[in-house]
Amino acid sequence: MSCLGFRERERMEGPKEVVKHLVIAKFKEEIPPERIEELIEGFANLVLLIEPLKTFHWGPNVSIGNLHQGFTHVFESTFESIEDVREYHQHPAHAEFANQILPALDKFMVIDYKYATLNLS
Amino acid sequence: MSCLGFRERERMEGPKEVVKHLVIAKFKEEIPPERIEELIEGFANLVLLIEPLKTFHWGPNVSIGNLHQGFTHVFESTFESIEDVREYHQHPAHAEFANQILPALDKFMVIDYKYATLNLS
Repeated sequence: MSCLGFRERERMEGPKEVVKHLVIAKFKEEIPPERIEELIEGFANLVLLIEPLKTFHWGPNVSIGNLHQGFTHVFESTFESIEDVREYHQHPAHAEFANQILPALDKFMVIDYKYATLNLS
Repeated sequence: MSCLGFRERERMEGPKEVVKHLVIAKFKEEIPPERIEELIEGFANLVLLIEPLKTFHWGPNVSIGNLHQGFTHVFESTFESIEDVREYHQHPAHAEFANQILPALDKFMVIDYKYATLNLS
């Protein structure tokens, strides 16, 4: 993880695009916690295998409201461009991991967004 | 924005919980870009008004696939606990802002997750 915030990095390197890639998933109820843990490790491991994938974080749903559509986990990764996301999707290690995780999921959604901060004056 | 990564902060302060709060929204097609911009500024402004809300970032959808359910924007904020998210929801400034943005939305979902990193060995 870089020690520099976006603003510091912008000052040093010029503005750099960051694309965030969210996978929001609902595991099937019958999948045991150990298998879920294994799959999350496999997901995180993609950072070591796929160069354009820069960071990976995840977390279990802890929503207090009922607006989360029953999803159980969020997986969040970063890329430097949408072209890099495309490259990631086409990587054999991604295909292999997708084949492992998809049968364990009830449903999922995927959304990419250009990461922006807002300077309030 | 802090200059320290989670690991550095953990070493210095002990582990600190981070809860990420995602609002994934679809603006109505008839809402003009200037109004959307105004609403995003209003959203970001909550950081100045509501103490437990620690950071705010956002971005427009740039998904290449068709798994994003038609959502157009992601709003991402951080809190130190799920209790802080509850406090944020009950804050009058949140209620006021919700009254402004909700009529501009076709649909939205909200998910909170406990932010985790994975140390790969």
